[in-house]
Amino acid sequence: MTIDPAEKSALYHIANPKSIAFFGASNNFNRMGTIILDSLRALGFEGPVYPVHPKETQVLGYAAYSSVAELPEAPDLAIMVLPTDVVGQYLEACGKRGTRHAVIVSGGFKEVGGRGPELEAEVKQIADRHSIRFLGPNCLGVANPHQRLNPTPFHYDAEPGFIGLASQSGSFVTQMFNYLAGYGLGYSTAFSVGNEANIDIVDCMEYLATCPHTRVIALYIEGIRRGDRFIEAARKIVPHKPIIALYIGGTEAGRRAGFSHTGSMAGPDALYAGMFKQSGIIRAASLTEMFDLCWALGTLPLPAGNRVLVQTHSGGPGATAADACDRDGLVLPQLSGSIVQALRPFMPHTGTLGNPVDLTFSKSPMDYFDEIPAVLLEEENTDILMVYFLAPSAFIERAFKQRGLTPEKVAEESRKLALDAAEKFINVVSAQDKPVVGFTYRSLNEAFTRHLITGGIPIFPDPKRASRALRALLDYKKWKVRLPEEKAPDRGDA
Amino acid sequence: MTIDPAEKSALYHIANPKSIAFFGASNNFNRMGTIILDSLRALGFEGPVYPVHPKETQVLGYAAYSSVAELPEAPDLAIMVLPTDVVGQYLEACGKRGTRHAVIVSGGFKEVGGRGPELEAEVKQIADRHSIRFLGPNCLGVANPHQRLNPTPFHYDAEPGFIGLASQSGSFVTQMFNYLAGYGLGYSTAFSVGNEANIDIVDCMEYLATCPHTRVIALYIEGIRRGDRFIEAARKIVPHKPIIALYIGGTEAGRRAGFSHTGSMAGPDALYAGMFKQSGIIRAASLTEMFDLCWALGTLPLPAGNRVLVQTHSGGPGATAADACDRDGLVLPQLSGSIVQALRPFMPHTGTLGNPVDLTFSKSPMDYFDEIPAVLLEEENTDILMVYFLAPSAFIERAFKQRGLTPEKVAEESRKLALDAAEKFINVVSAQDKPVVGFTYRSLNEAFTRHLITGGIPIFPDPKRASRALRALLDYKKWKVRLPEEKAPDRGDA
Repeated sequence: MTIDPAEKSALYHIANPKSIAFFGASNNFNRMGTIILDSLRALGFEGPVYPVHPKETQVLGYAAYSSVAELPEAPDLAIMVLPTDVVGQYLEACGKRGTRHAVIVSGGFKEVGGRGPELEAEVKQIADRHSIRFLGPNCLGVANPHQRLNPTPFHYDAEPGFIGLASQSGSFVTQMFNYLAGYGLGYSTAFSVGNEANIDIVDCMEYLATCPHTRVIALYIEGIRRGDRFIEAARKIVPHKPIIALYIGGTEAGRRAGFSHTGSMAGPDALYAGMFKQSGIIRAASLTEMFDLCWALGTLPLPAGNRVLVQTHSGGPGATAADACDRDGLVLPQLSGSIVQALRPFMPHTGTLGNPVDLTFSKSPMDYFDEIPAVLLEEENTDILMVYFLAPSAFIERAFKQRGLTPEKVAEESRKLALDAAEKFINVVSAQDKPVVGFTYRSLNEAFTRHLITGGIPIFPDPKRASRALRALLDYKKWKVRLPEEKAPDRGDA
Repeated sequence: MTIDPAEKSALYHIANPKSIAFFGASNNFNRMGTIILDSLRALGFEGPVYPVHPKETQVLGYAAYSSVAELPEAPDLAIMVLPTDVVGQYLEACGKRGTRHAVIVSGGFKEVGGRGPELEAEVKQIADRHSIRFLGPNCLGVANPHQRLNPTPFHYDAEPGFIGLASQSGSFVTQMFNYLAGYGLGYSTAFSVGNEANIDIVDCMEYLATCPHTRVIALYIEGIRRGDRFIEAARKIVPHKPIIALYIGGTEAGRRAGFSHTGSMAGPDALYAGMFKQSGIIRAASLTEMFDLCWALGTLPLPAGNRVLVQTHSGGPGATAADACDRDGLVLPQLSGSIVQALRPFMPHTGTLGNPVDLTFSKSPMDYFDEIPAVLLEEENTDILMVYFLAPSAFIERAFKQRGLTPEKVAEESRKLALDAAEKFINVVSAQDKPVVGFTYRSLNEAFTRHLITGGIPIFPDPKRASRALRALLDYKKWKVRLPEEKAPDRGDA
């Protein structure tokens, strides 16, 4: 098995179309098609977009066409948000016109029973006849913010990112833009596979392996049909790119929910756990965890080992971090004598020179972001630095206020100070090779934290989430080394 | 053993002082004492505050006194943020003047070794001689927002709440105000116990049991000395008020961190797990989880059983919720025929009448917040409703915009619609007795979600956090019933 280079894949055209014909949008915002076309327009896709509509001459400002035959060219991609019954005939028309790629958003097929499976089989036949590859039906298609492509219900309000998603839920494409933005994250490309009548989640995973913007692959799985191919492909990908999976079909309630959602056939939890293990895929316990692990794996260098140094100025947060690390199989070695010596000038008498290194509140606050982590990163007994962050300018703000500065001036000075602290920290981290993560209980939207995040330092809202992400780095490192050396398992092992 | 009514406890005076003498504040914001007094002032404590300072005549706008003897009355509470060496002499002076309650913030005692333990013993003797009860040393004291009392480093930026905290970390008092505000939560009263030279965490727990603002007790534990008394007290409290504990001394790294933090002697994880189990205390796995469980237990009625109905308009979030519930021992029964009938008018053809009830996007959006949950709450086969929330006005906003409304008008109309949806939902929930929780992947700060939260409906940022909190409701219910009937365990069982 070889994985095609990105440009050869049908998914390349779906994620990077030269032109789009859009079926099912009007100027009526009660229709899903209109909502989706509006999102496409809002992100500013630069290629030609051709709405096809029987009556309208303009749709959301685009010139509309009354039939496929009238289109000025054979569109690279057809997106259909049409009533179930007419999908086939429009796909047929597209095929005749020379279109070879489609996204079928429309539902009412296999997932609803009745005539649904029959209609789905018809659509498949039409596609095969015209060599059309398509996502769906019953999906939300694709988002590729690097190409300003977002034909999904929600506006893309994150930055283009490095997470490649292949999802058996369209919600986890479009409804997570806002979530990811909150963490400074974004998709490289995200696929919703729906009923997988033609392209399935394995195809998408293989494409994402070759996509240059994708640093880490995330999979939301309700059930995989091509288990063997999945394992085979994943084993080839993992040495080059980490894969994180959330599988929800392993519980009785999850299995039933997945079945009524996309008609997927789930398997026992242990079966999937075995598949993931054979493939070097890291399993996430929740959607939040899936994106946490993506964040760490897409941002941080792999650590040399599992030894963590925790930097804090508050005992409790340091202790919870130590406990969380320990439970995730990370260790906190004691500091070397030379590092203890090097720290002395920065330490107030109440600080403890253990690990966590607890600086307390008393000494020059800016050292915390600069000289102190620089010393700690030189500790040869540790591989990772985990830092607790609070609000660096909180107390200084009050001093400014007491001195009679205007509220605007106080805000400006505090912001300057916070950004300066963040910038100093980023510089220290960038000058070396160990992974560095932060945690805070404050909002990730504060200027200080946001600056750290934008500077490439993941800041988790709880030390447990940080330690779990570090554990994933170590697990991934193990697979990256081990998989290429291992013989592939016999078919049927899964 | 009986637990004293709130007013008889020394901690009542510490949390509800009539007057305060403050030692260690000046007008210099580089000093922790000044920062703490500034917080006290900022929240607007209404009783008299007497800073004691050898030179200043005014401190942060309060008239200052050069000695204890000069104070106009014997202060109800003395708060000390003084150098270690002089704590004893000022405590002595307070004792002579008739003060019977103190908070000793100063560090440099038992936790640092050297002369520290000796100095701490001296302070204890002075206190005993004058019948002074005190928190600390090496603590951050107390916050009681219901009395506008916050002598801790950070400004109290949450609302007065229902979580009573007794913490072996001061950070988890003062550094969590901002965190709690983000969830619409707040402390009833929070105690930082520090070195527990006089008052310990067990005393605080007992006081919180009697505090009328406290609906749920949270404990951050690095190590408990009076294990027997702890178990005995907790067993008396739990039938009336739930207790949630985070214990971090059970891992090697956590134990060491706790020891250098407060000199606490931790015990093996299994020992504490046993103590919690004997006492009916619910154990949290992280600080985030501790507050999540407090949120649910302080807000929701106890469910009749473990049967959950999940309401969603998106398959993926519904399926992750189903999976999370299943893993936490909750079940998702199928809908009764009568409920299916009652739902029919609201269902688009793509909706599935399983559990999760998946409404999809297609029908009248406002039904989701009103008629539909009203029907679902009548399902006799379920005890709990869990609802997925997105952004109710997202699509309508675009329609408004397309119609040419000004951005201000769009924002205003959308907000009105969102608040109307939230209000409708709150009314449906309030009219019945089952616990209802929500989850969303969007910011909890959006007007819609914030309104639900303020209306008493916990909205968790992940279904896993919601299911874990529901699990805690069920666990608590079991203990509430079982504990009063059980014989207390033999001493030594722990």
